[in-house]
Parts: sequence; structure tokens; C-alpha cells
Amino acid sequence: MAAWGERLAGVRGVLLDISGVLYDGGEGGGAPIAGSVEALARLKRSQLKVRFCTNESQKSRGDLVGMLRRLGFDISEGEVTAPAPATCLILKERGLRPHLLIHDGVRSEFDQIDTSNPNCVVIADAGEGFSYQNMNKAFQVLMELENPVLLSLGKGRYYKETSGLMLDVGPYMKALEYACGIEAEVVGKPSPEFFKSALREMGLEAHQGTRVLALVWEDPTCHGATGPVSHNC
Amino acid sequence: MAAWGERLAGVRGVLLDISGVLYDGGEGGGAPIAGSVEALARLKRSQLKVRFCTNESQKSRGDLVGMLRRLGFDISEGEVTAPAPATCLILKERGLRPHLLIHDGVRSEFDQIDTSNPNCVVIADAGEGFSYQNMNKAFQVLMELENPVLLSLGKGRYYKETSGLMLDVGPYMKALEYACGIEAEVVGKPSPEFFKSALREMGLEAHQGTRVLALVWEDPTCHGATGPVSHNC
Repeated sequence: MAAWGERLAGVRGVLLDISGVLYDGGEGGGAPIAGSVEALARLKRSQLKVRFCTNESQKSRGDLVGMLRRLGFDISEGEVTAPAPATCLILKERGLRPHLLIHDGVRSEFDQIDTSNPNCVVIADAGEGFSYQNMNKAFQVLMELENPVLLSLGKGRYYKETSGLMLDVGPYMKALEYACGIEAEVVGKPSPEFFKSALREMGLEAHQGTRVLALVWEDPTCHGATGPVSHNC
Repeated sequence: MAAWGERLAGVRGVLLDISGVLYDGGEGGGAPIAGSVEALARLKRSQLKVRFCTNESQKSRGDLVGMLRRLGFDISEGEVTAPAPATCLILKERGLRPHLLIHDGVRSEFDQIDTSNPNCVVIADAGEGFSYQNMNKAFQVLMELENPVLLSLGKGRYYKETSGLMLDVGPYMKALEYACGIEAEVVGKPSPEFFKSALREMGLEAHQGTRVLALVWEDPTCHGATGPVSHNC
């Protein structure tokens, strides 16, 4: 592995994931991953621009940031790129009125959205909200539309909580895709549009040739990694 | 369309689906589809062998047949090919001990199956049993297995109840496939093995060159059909 100085040559900004990278969620709000609070503090002292790019869709940005600050992270709401606000922009641009299959914790992000007489479905990590009844309702709404539109906040397979692995939104997105014979539009990672919007918010552009690395402190007990791992976005 | 006499030339047996063909399920046990009770009686008076081939996995065969008899159908338990008993055979043959994600109504079919220390997951149309918690448990069982095996009783997308369309097992099978990165083994239609076992139970063999038609009395209000429709199995 190349030395870090060499690997970081030309890097202007750092996009950090949150869940599974800065902390693992779970009972009592979850716990920071060892080393992550200090690593973030060090990044912020550096010349690098730092932004958070998350698919978190169980909490509003305000609640997420509040929780992270209580865990010791130096983070503010304006530094977070998240799929719920990105989805609201799309809904407004396209005149879409969603049926929402989402967690109550993120519902406030959709306060300004017209949900009457729905002409699309928005699905997010609803957790316990993924009851048969709620899934069936979303399915029925889609089946009644001439041109069914399904927006999914991410397509993650699962995530790790302190109590174990938990199903993410992706499997439920796949379930509705199969049931209705449609393909969802994913808002959030790994959509290139989502990464680009995070870059714009950092004042960086991919076409500048700026190399952006996502630095993740993977949990060695989970993935067998022993330190930071880099991925090209 | 060719006359029925011509279409039935060489046909020795008839496999009938049940849900959506003989009756639509729903509140109070559901309702026969118009014409189906009389059509079955007429088939039974003919020279044709008749058998029922269903993916029903919310009820045991006993409960299913009891309900159909109350609705006026001439049917007995020994005439029904269903995925739960077929699955039990597979489990025994392969030494599999399932974690069951199934409807309570079909649980009695698995009474003789060892479910301790599971080494596979069996998923069926669990209806309201498809809670997030139950799905997550099935997911966790699969993720803990070195060689995860998922048996799915059918892969239907949805079915019609008197109250509307309802999600079937297929979407939930797809959800677990995606979450775990695996492919389920489908027991039931449209698996050729399942049709062959139904033929064997009728005393017919596909290699006899016997043409078997599935005659279905489709609900004209649902599918736009106006009479019997034939499908080659």
C-alpha cells in the first residue's frame, strides 16, 4: 500500500460516510467507531475540505447532527448531504406528490411536500415501518398509477447496528420493483448525481480533475480491515 | 379460437389452479369465481383426470380443502398438489433444518420437521407475518450460514383478494435474495419439477406425449377475459 502522503496527493476534499464509518447505530443512539472522532478532528484541522455524504434516511439532518455532536463529532447540519432533501428537490421539480413509506424520524424533511392524491411512491429505510400492511399500501398505490414512479432513498442491502445486521431500504425497493415490474430511481449513493451535488456543496467540481477519496475507518471486527480504506468515488 | 372439442383432442388430464381461478380469497373466506363450481363438476363428470395444483401457502391442505368444500367445490385433500408438502420432502432428503418464515395457517404442514439449529430458511406467503422483525430474523439466519439456502414456496408477485391486490411471497423472496446476494430455490409453480410431481400424482407422465392444459376461468372483471383460457404447462 502506498504511503498516505502519496495517496493523498492532489486530494482537495474528503467525503465522509456516517453510519458504519463514524458510528454504529443501535440502542441508546449507537456508539462511535474507535478512532473516528479523532480522525474527523484531524481532518478538520487539515487543508482538506470535509463534507458528510450519507444515505441515512431514518432521521432528519437536524436529529442526525444532534446525535453525532452528542457522541463528540465536530459536525453541523450544513455540512451534510442526505437523500431526503435531495428527494424533495426532485419531487418539486417534477410535480410529484408522494405516498411516503418512510421512518417517522425523517418525516419532518417532507413537511413542505404535497402528499395529497399521490402520483408516486417514495421509499426510505422505514425500519419497523416496513410492515406488510405498509408495503402493500405502497404496492397498491403504484399499481393504480398509469406510469408508476418509485423513488428510493438509497439502495443499501443492510447496515450494522450494535445489536447486529439490519435490513436496509434496498431489499424493500427490490420487492416493490419485482411486484410492480418497474425499476426504482435511486436518490442517494451510489447515484453519481448525488456525489456531484455533494461536491458542488463543497465548492469542488469533478471536472476540475480533483481526486476525491472517501476515507472510511472500517470496523475491524466487522470487515476484517485494519485501518483506513480508500475508495475512489 | 378453435372449437373446444378440437382444443381438447388428446388431453388426458386437467390441472386446476385454485386461488384466482376457482375462488378469490378475502374477508369471510372469499368467494367462488362465477362459473367455477359448475365447471369443476362438469370436468369431474368427464373422462379427464382432474387435479389441483396450487401455490397456496397460507393454509394447510386440510384447511384449504375444507374451505373450498364449504364454497361448494367437489375437492378432496388427496387431489391437491401444494408446495408445503413438496418442501417437506426436500428438507428431509437434504437434511435441512429450516427457519420458517411462513403463515401460521400452514405451520401444521411442518409439524414433523426439525427446526432446531437452522441451516436454511423457508419462506412462504406469510401475509401480515412479513413484519420487519421477521424479515430481519430470516436475513440474519441466512447471513450466519456459510452456505445460505433459501427455499421459497412459489414466487408469485401478487394475488387478488376481494379487497384488492395483495403482495405474494415473490417480492419478499427477492428482498432476501438481494440482501444476502443469493438465489432462492423455488418450490411450487412455475418449477417444472412441481408440475411433474402433480402429473405423477395423476398417474400421467409428460413423456407420454400427453398434452395437459390448465383450464382457468379467469375473472372477466379482473383480467378482461370472457371465458376459459388455456395455457400449455
